Amino acid sequence: MQIKRSAISVGAKKKNIHTYIHLEMDKAAAKQKFVDEFSGLVQELKEILVQYNMPQEAIDWFTKNLNYNTPGGKLNRGLSVIDTYCILKNKSLADLSQEEYKKVAILGWAIELLQAYFLVADDMMDQSKTRRGQPCWYLVEGVGNIAINDSFMLEGAIYVLLKKHFRQDPYYVDLLDLFHEVTFQTELGQLLDLVTADEEHVDLDKFSLAKHSFIVIFKTAYYSFYLPVALAMFMCGINSEQDLKQVRDILIPLGEYFQIQDDYLDCFGTPEQIGKIGTDIKDNKCSWVVNQALLKVNAEQRKLLDENYGKKSDESEQKVKELFTQLDIPAIYHEYEESIVAKLRAQIENVDESRGLKKEVLTAFLGKVYKRSK
Amino acid sequence: MQIKRSAISVGAKKKNIHTYIHLEMDKAAAKQKFVDEFSGLVQELKEILVQYNMPQEAIDWFTKNLNYNTPGGKLNRGLSVIDTYCILKNKSLADLSQEEYKKVAILGWAIELLQAYFLVADDMMDQSKTRRGQPCWYLVEGVGNIAINDSFMLEGAIYVLLKKHFRQDPYYVDLLDLFHEVTFQTELGQLLDLVTADEEHVDLDKFSLAKHSFIVIFKTAYYSFYLPVALAMFMCGINSEQDLKQVRDILIPLGEYFQIQDDYLDCFGTPEQIGKIGTDIKDNKCSWVVNQALLKVNAEQRKLLDENYGKKSDESEQKVKELFTQLDIPAIYHEYEESIVAKLRAQIENVDESRGLKKEVLTAFLGKVYKRSK
Repeated sequence: MQIKRSAISVGAKKKNIHTYIHLEMDKAAAKQKFVDEFSGLVQELKEILVQYNMPQEAIDWFTKNLNYNTPGGKLNRGLSVIDTYCILKNKSLADLSQEEYKKVAILGWAIELLQAYFLVADDMMDQSKTRRGQPCWYLVEGVGNIAINDSFMLEGAIYVLLKKHFRQDPYYVDLLDLFHEVTFQTELGQLLDLVTADEEHVDLDKFSLAKHSFIVIFKTAYYSFYLPVALAMFMCGINSEQDLKQVRDILIPLGEYFQIQDDYLDCFGTPEQIGKIGTDIKDNKCSWVVNQALLKVNAEQRKLLDENYGKKSDESEQKVKELFTQLDIPAIYHEYEESIVAKLRAQIENVDESRGLKKEVLTAFLGKVYKRSK
Repeated sequence: MQIKRSAISVGAKKKNIHTYIHLEMDKAAAKQKFVDEFSGLVQELKEILVQYNMPQEAIDWFTKNLNYNTPGGKLNRGLSVIDTYCILKNKSLADLSQEEYKKVAILGWAIELLQAYFLVADDMMDQSKTRRGQPCWYLVEGVGNIAINDSFMLEGAIYVLLKKHFRQDPYYVDLLDLFHEVTFQTELGQLLDLVTADEEHVDLDKFSLAKHSFIVIFKTAYYSFYLPVALAMFMCGINSEQDLKQVRDILIPLGEYFQIQDDYLDCFGTPEQIGKIGTDIKDNKCSWVVNQALLKVNAEQRKLLDENYGKKSDESEQKVKELFTQLDIPAIYHEYEESIVAKLRAQIENVDESRGLKKEVLTAFLGKVYKRSK
């Protein structure tokens, strides 16, 4: 399969509609190639259970758990590992040997397994109903609380695969440390989110921009932005603390910007734009939007917020949205966006490429986030 | 504090009541010394969160999670790491430098954290009410489903501590691999247990001795018996696959025996003996006892079992117990016990000590299990 470099270089200039269509086709092909790797990994995991003489019904259960919860999303995190690796190696997808591709794809699927682990559990903690267009795993007939152990096993699968494929590599221990660190950071973000946004007891005094920043950086930015790039770097032997710091210093604020954009679109994006109906206001979310509003409200407006934020009614939600507009939150958002993007561009410009890191890795990420509408 | 070797040598002959009392006092002192290490580790974990600028309420939550769920049990697994280390090094507790003791104790607490991770989650999956004489964590006011993320963080704490204290050691990666492997094995055991013993749908056809064996070996034996010894071995530099296999080949059947004994005592032990009231029959547990009974029942007895096993009533439980007695399960148990103990003793006798492993490690474990009444 011929896949052009353009397929993985998302930051590339789109010269005309013809190029654009090619780019989208290449992206779809790259995603399909990545998806095609997954069944082989499921097979490998099953074989380990077979070697343990595990009874068939439990092997079937684990297989269903893996297949139900791991693919099915946009796979941006997993694909980012491959994109980054290609940029760092200055290779196109077609240039990678089958063996090389498989190893990078395993790191990509390891992030997707980590994400699956979090999502299965988050859905239980948030009592969500659907995920990726299907019922949440814990709501599937016969699953229930077994989903807790299933989430553990999705995490466990990461280390089974890493050991099998990377044990002999000099950077194996770095991969393990990185997964541990980022997993723990994500759990810290989730913890603060859970103790801050209690749907039962709405209390806006619990919110603050500092907390919002901690939550989004720890719960999202580390595993969604820093982890894919750091994994690809380790595989390319770019492993100095200086280089890891260079990418962290850009990708963490970039991840924060991504989430702020997400919060903004949840409130101000159209359902067509964001592909869903935003529910942050009704769900009492510690969103960037409400935190900005809290900085600007007078006593009367604060009273309106206290009385309507986190309420399940459409009328309350509408009142809150009107207040947000009145407080000029969209203008504040656009100002923030232009300022953070300018700052990130300047930071990227100053990246030291002398040890093999490439600015293009970071511009590609920025290009994926800036002015996206969903 | 002077603590004699006898304190950690549980297999030692008890010469008279005077020696016995000393032994028990030494054991209590050894436990206290281990418990005293825990608060320092909690402090270290808190400091990492402080460095991350985590808001205080989340730090307090994590601290409460650690203190509520980690100590408070018998700590046999954690103490076994220290016992084993002392035997392998031919040292008494008093001989260990403070630094050396702390490192071994961290490995011990790492197992206790692993256990806490499992128990917090198991209690949710089993809908248990109490644990170690207090309400289960998820039932504590304000906790609920946040307990899922809390269980993740107990596991996460293991790797934070290992990295901080063992990153520079040549066996660091072995420790990580071992924790990953044993964690995954325990989750496999838990999965089979969950899909086999469904309290809602009692179906004795789902049971078998083979499944029982898989469940107890994977859910209990690996982390409770093999893990403490293997950790101590790594720290002593006894790390050949031959030696790990030698201890695994003995500790896994020993752990299975321990659990079979536990199953037996749940049904045939007195509440005074086992410190609780057994509930396996009412809870539809895939216990060794019911599996032995299933091998021996005639059609009529099977009907009685089908109608009464897993029922919540005292009357049904009593009928099942009478059937078990009628089927001579106690005699089968005692025969099994004598035969497995003889086999394990013979295996221990044949252990190759040439690379530093010591039979005494294994006799100590056997001594803790054989003829215990609780």
